[in-house]
Amino acid sequence: MIEIRDIRITLPPWVGAFLSDWPETFEDDAAAMGLAIALARENVRQVGGPFGAVLLETSSGRLVSVGVNRVLASHCSLAHAELVALGSAQQTLGGYDLSALVPGGCTLFSSAEPCAMCMGAIPWAGVGRLVCGARDEDARAAGLDEGHKPADWVRAYARRRIAVTRDFLRTQAAAVLADYAESGGVIYGPRSH
Amino acid sequence: MIEIRDIRITLPPWVGAFLSDWPETFEDDAAAMGLAIALARENVRQVGGPFGAVLLETSSGRLVSVGVNRVLASHCSLAHAELVALGSAQQTLGGYDLSALVPGGCTLFSSAEPCAMCMGAIPWAGVGRLVCGARDEDARAAGLDEGHKPADWVRAYARRRIAVTRDFLRTQAAAVLADYAESGGVIYGPRSH
Repeated sequence: MIEIRDIRITLPPWVGAFLSDWPETFEDDAAAMGLAIALARENVRQVGGPFGAVLLETSSGRLVSVGVNRVLASHCSLAHAELVALGSAQQTLGGYDLSALVPGGCTLFSSAEPCAMCMGAIPWAGVGRLVCGARDEDARAAGLDEGHKPADWVRAYARRRIAVTRDFLRTQAAAVLADYAESGGVIYGPRSH
Repeated sequence: MIEIRDIRITLPPWVGAFLSDWPETFEDDAAAMGLAIALARENVRQVGGPFGAVLLETSSGRLVSVGVNRVLASHCSLAHAELVALGSAQQTLGGYDLSALVPGGCTLFSSAEPCAMCMGAIPWAGVGRLVCGARDEDARAAGLDEGHKPADWVRAYARRRIAVTRDFLRTQAAAVLADYAESGGVIYGPRSH
């Protein structure tokens, strides 16, 4: 008989103290992306993957949840920063559709453009707006695999009424990826690719 | 301060007893897909989404894990059948890369073709082979959203050395989706689409 096991993805224990230095409400996109990039950088220092994500209430700028890459620590390839932020928000709020749970909807800030998995996942969570820091090619330049995404994914999001802002604080965001690669960070991903 | 919450995705309590009627080692693809379809059908009966997945050791046919759609029950849009099977296997085996953990690799049987999220996720888990029942268009015909996938995703998988078999027991698999739509099953997905 196989083991029937719950899937559990944790945020790292340092996140609580880390967030105490940041506001609960963000004035503008730059402040929120600043936190996403800072989470990515701290996660590298704590031996995690170089990605961070921040979910805000679009209308108020209030923080809903955060995510960092937890693939290695959680033994789970689903645990990308964006999905950690989304899953954590959904389970805290008690539903899978953030567009129904948060009046005015949510904005997801990601320190890098979503990989193929996260690109597919973001619409399912009812996210209304996505703001990305580093480009796909910045991640690839650092040796990280982004997967096979439709070239027109931003237009496909628009058809679902998900607004996308790219290249926001890109230089700062891409620097986290470049530093990670330079420092010899683990390039996780299945052995066979 | 936001709540720092673990993400938890459970398999339904009925799965253990359900699996006791099935073998632990599967003779061929038809037997394994039969289980994936049976899980999808039982999940509908138990008021879940109409999808099931089965993960086997490719060389031995031994069952590694199963998944059913748990989006509604888990309050989590990540909880598609394929991702539940993969996450459960990874955390049971203690690593994110199934290609490194299971000699000869794993085969994932899914009662329907992967949506955009699952299409992106499967390569990250180190799956070596994917067998799909219902087509993407069977799911769409039942009113279910599959997201925006690259048209050439099967070729992209081949480049990563992931073999794909489509339309395997498609008629039986598609019937679960059609029955679900006819019975007025919840068409979950964000309200805004």
